[in-house]
Amino acid sequence: MSQADASAEPEAVAGNGLLHRRLFLTRGLTLAGAMGVAGHAHAQVAPPKHPEWMMRQGTGLSGYGQPSKFEDGVKRIMGQPNPLTPTLGSTRTPLEKLTGMITPNGLHFERHHSSVPDINPDAHSLLIHGLVRQPQKWDMSALMRYPMTSVIRFIECSGNSGAAKRAVPQTSVGQIHGLLSCSEWTGVKLSHLLDETGLADGASWIIAEGAEASSMVRSIPLKTALDDVIVALYQNGERIRPEQGYPMRLLVPGCEGSVNVKWVHRIKVVNGPGHSRDETGQYTDLLPDGRALQYTLILGPKSLIIHPSVGMKMSQPGFYEISGLAWSGHGAVRRVEVTADGGKSWADAELTEPVLSKCLTRFRMPWSWNGGPATLASRATDDRGNVQPTHAVAIANYGEVGAYHYNGIQPWAVAQTGEVANVRM
Amino acid sequence: MSQADASAEPEAVAGNGLLHRRLFLTRGLTLAGAMGVAGHAHAQVAPPKHPEWMMRQGTGLSGYGQPSKFEDGVKRIMGQPNPLTPTLGSTRTPLEKLTGMITPNGLHFERHHSSVPDINPDAHSLLIHGLVRQPQKWDMSALMRYPMTSVIRFIECSGNSGAAKRAVPQTSVGQIHGLLSCSEWTGVKLSHLLDETGLADGASWIIAEGAEASSMVRSIPLKTALDDVIVALYQNGERIRPEQGYPMRLLVPGCEGSVNVKWVHRIKVVNGPGHSRDETGQYTDLLPDGRALQYTLILGPKSLIIHPSVGMKMSQPGFYEISGLAWSGHGAVRRVEVTADGGKSWADAELTEPVLSKCLTRFRMPWSWNGGPATLASRATDDRGNVQPTHAVAIANYGEVGAYHYNGIQPWAVAQTGEVANVRM
Repeated sequence: MSQADASAEPEAVAGNGLLHRRLFLTRGLTLAGAMGVAGHAHAQVAPPKHPEWMMRQGTGLSGYGQPSKFEDGVKRIMGQPNPLTPTLGSTRTPLEKLTGMITPNGLHFERHHSSVPDINPDAHSLLIHGLVRQPQKWDMSALMRYPMTSVIRFIECSGNSGAAKRAVPQTSVGQIHGLLSCSEWTGVKLSHLLDETGLADGASWIIAEGAEASSMVRSIPLKTALDDVIVALYQNGERIRPEQGYPMRLLVPGCEGSVNVKWVHRIKVVNGPGHSRDETGQYTDLLPDGRALQYTLILGPKSLIIHPSVGMKMSQPGFYEISGLAWSGHGAVRRVEVTADGGKSWADAELTEPVLSKCLTRFRMPWSWNGGPATLASRATDDRGNVQPTHAVAIANYGEVGAYHYNGIQPWAVAQTGEVANVRM
Repeated sequence: MSQADASAEPEAVAGNGLLHRRLFLTRGLTLAGAMGVAGHAHAQVAPPKHPEWMMRQGTGLSGYGQPSKFEDGVKRIMGQPNPLTPTLGSTRTPLEKLTGMITPNGLHFERHHSSVPDINPDAHSLLIHGLVRQPQKWDMSALMRYPMTSVIRFIECSGNSGAAKRAVPQTSVGQIHGLLSCSEWTGVKLSHLLDETGLADGASWIIAEGAEASSMVRSIPLKTALDDVIVALYQNGERIRPEQGYPMRLLVPGCEGSVNVKWVHRIKVVNGPGHSRDETGQYTDLLPDGRALQYTLILGPKSLIIHPSVGMKMSQPGFYEISGLAWSGHGAVRRVEVTADGGKSWADAELTEPVLSKCLTRFRMPWSWNGGPATLASRATDDRGNVQPTHAVAIANYGEVGAYHYNGIQPWAVAQTGEVANVRM
């Protein structure tokens, strides 16, 4: 559809009403009628009367702002905690209430294996020892002197999306997929610190330990550690929040959440992975033959349609913008395809710039819903050519019983009532 | 300096210790000695003892996270309010305590001409009328149905940096330049809404009005309004904060803060600018001949060194990373040059990716401080070729008496004591 042709029918690009992704870049397009939101479109529209908040003074300046009271419902999604261990568990990012690619710090998902330690940064330090030429220890003021780097990267818990794997019928997209957030992280490249200690013969892995009561211990290949791992000190501009690892955490871009060790205080350079409790009792993938995959750290290509998604109700037939998120632990998202007919036909969605490596990418796609049943789904391809798998392939990759690494295509069924359900395609 | 040559002397690229910007990309570089932070570098470094926070349970999960209590000092910088009008004025982003390019929502600068209205979004709507074919009014639910776009863009008050213009001796970089913040904004392109109303003959400007008690009224050329202006609903993923215009504001990328009208509820399409109180009594540039420039909306190229900056004290001679922010209302930053000898020689700083249009860009530059006096400054060039002016040229552009649009080069003088002062170069 060209700019000069805005009054023509929008170009269908796949079955069941999917329209060309560039449609919304067209000038001269009128949407209100097609969306059923043109109720106010009459010449007698009057300038607004002065509402009450224009007739009185409001609130004043503040040192640290908070959301509007009308957004009180926008909170991290809490699970049902075990009453014997109320401080451990997880909260999820309410993806369905957010948009863009940045997650505000207050809504970044949490996953704690014991609780959030109340660390005094002046008493915290980072030690690197083991197979190094010279062990070294940095306190905050020493670390703050180093050159820093900033990157926008997602963090996803490898246990994310378990309810999608099991096609749990009624829930919300945040409840299913909200162990996923994205921030601008700033800190010191771990390679700078390993250059200070030097590496001894045989060094091939590192083991990172957190300073919380349960001490998360995870192993990372040295090659990864020397590549793009950061000792992160800042999140979206300000110091990292306590529940994200204050005063410092590892950022291991593209790798499962738990290796992004929070409250990190010790890194040991070793000659092989540590087989810690946190990577044997958890975070392994049990296969049908009884073997378990270990150290499957890199998160595969994945995407989600968020608008519309399970639990939402579409008010009436007409024009909609389908939008969602795509990401890959291997690199940048190259392509997101969308289907509205349960996978019979697919078309490319528009990717919102900037499209960054190991970062969430927002995709958008115009859709004309005819009011009939529709099955919507998205499929991500990354710049290494990895394609988000079907449910069957995802199960074959990581086993059926495990809770980790599920990245199968997520379909939503839209009923004639407009209700959206979580289904298997 | 090549990777194979990491042990050689770093390459000097300009006077008084500036080193090649790619130095920190070199592997095998050791910095601790050069930074005087190697006090812990001995073979007897022991694994950390268990600090108190590892010996007890910490805090639990939370619905909406907050910064650590150890960061209580990181707040917006308050001016001295007029006791008769305590709710109006401004707070500034504490730039010296932040890094990266994103400003966390709680620390985005504020500028209110009366106060923050407590708007119920269900009772708020946006009207577009005037020189249109069909006036239209959108409530929140109607607007939420439209296709959206997300962009990372700065907002800067045109009154920013007044203390730099006057070379106020003692203060902080946030105090001087902190009417500057950057967020990912998501909303509906204003062009979509103007397409709905259509435009009548003679339409050439719009006038936007805010729904606060003092009703900010600003004029914007129609050409700009149809280009990249957004009715912004989300900031860094979540709904816009009350002090940033909840439930909706204009985002006019690259243009002075006040035209990014907060709490916007009315847009009138007109045949010329409105000459409102807010653009005659304020936001004009008085020239020496008595004339005043009006509608100087686009903010020129600008940059700041933030580390180090006024009020900081450098502990000892050695290696430092100079870092700061650069931006331009005309487009993307193409280049930032840094001097350490008061402008006698300059060298290019490293720009942190992604470098986006009308967005803050973090720059970084290695520096070896010899302990002698130094005058540091940065100079931005944008992708249209606009160069940040000297103080003299900035004064010539916008006049000496006015408080707006100052984008002169900001020098900091480093004394032999390590103290950093605000000076004129």
